[in-house]
Amino acid sequence: MNIRIVVFDGADEFDFVGPYEAFRHAAMLGADVDAGLVTLEPQSQVVAAHGLRLIPEGVITGTPDLVLVPGGGWVNHAALGVRAQVARGNLPRKMAEFHAAGATIAGVCTGVMVLAAAGLLDGRVATTHSGAIKDLRSSKAHVIQSRVVDEGDILTCGGVTASLDLALWLIERDVGNQVAEAVATYMEHRRSRDVYIARDGI
Amino acid sequence: MNIRIVVFDGADEFDFVGPYEAFRHAAMLGADVDAGLVTLEPQSQVVAAHGLRLIPEGVITGTPDLVLVPGGGWVNHAALGVRAQVARGNLPRKMAEFHAAGATIAGVCTGVMVLAAAGLLDGRVATTHSGAIKDLRSSKAHVIQSRVVDEGDILTCGGVTASLDLALWLIERDVGNQVAEAVATYMEHRRSRDVYIARDGI
Repeated sequence: MNIRIVVFDGADEFDFVGPYEAFRHAAMLGADVDAGLVTLEPQSQVVAAHGLRLIPEGVITGTPDLVLVPGGGWVNHAALGVRAQVARGNLPRKMAEFHAAGATIAGVCTGVMVLAAAGLLDGRVATTHSGAIKDLRSSKAHVIQSRVVDEGDILTCGGVTASLDLALWLIERDVGNQVAEAVATYMEHRRSRDVYIARDGI
Repeated sequence: MNIRIVVFDGADEFDFVGPYEAFRHAAMLGADVDAGLVTLEPQSQVVAAHGLRLIPEGVITGTPDLVLVPGGGWVNHAALGVRAQVARGNLPRKMAEFHAAGATIAGVCTGVMVLAAAGLLDGRVATTHSGAIKDLRSSKAHVIQSRVVDEGDILTCGGVTASLDLALWLIERDVGNQVAEAVATYMEHRRSRDVYIARDGI
């Protein structure tokens, strides 16, 4: 399971580090999961929403099994972050392409607005950070305020710490509950079971 | 309030990113909090326990109000991380010096073992990651399995995600509950109230 987490300037630290640690820890426990922090275009360093400077692993290539998009800067209208990415258009366009090529797409926190801009949520059930719920409502998504929403090939979740529950749910769904529980135990995280699974539409 | 989070190769990502985001977000909300990720000696990049590469802000200088030590690598006996730092001795020694100079010291997850090695927990109430509780018991600390333990000038907490509860508790204690709640709301984090406050010893 090849998971690429797309980072960009202004991305919320927790939105990508929570899932990154959960996926990477699953791999340390023997799960067939390869998770990496990547960028769309070559970028030697990324400055996240609260100032963390990280060195990404490289550029996203091929079609990953899962692409995760973090949020950041939507609620406070930051110059860098999701709003800038949506205005630029490249990230939503690439997400639509990855989805069309068969990748599962996960939008975390206000990263869900990237999926909305990509048209991936049209007629779909979705959620986002509480500070962006109004904006998501004015898209073509059907908003449900569960902590995690699973549409099969598209997943969304609430804000910041909900990203960890989304990652643990994905591990449970695609690897197994034993590994998901072992990761949660290591991280001493009380998982939220507020996962809405859309089976036959809403 | 000058908070320095000391990072080192093999430090657990969540242990420092969770508190970093909470403190930095408190500052964004107007709190007088300056939090930074620093190293003891000059180091252009730090590779964390699960592979995240970050660029620290620089070397720790002066006497911060609070120094936070993350965990990492203790439970799985990793070559880099807390065990290497304890064996080397520099980090525990510096923590003892910062404490003697008046800094509050917070040990997060297995970073608590650095405080134990520094002698800072002798006769004190403390906790740590569940995978290190046995080791902490064989130190001179009095182990209490609360999620956060507040000894006033020394704070400790459980594993990984407990670091966020420790940070939010510190914000509540030293800044105010309104800011702590605002940060928790932004992070959509259900806080744990399992905070043990040692008032007159154990």
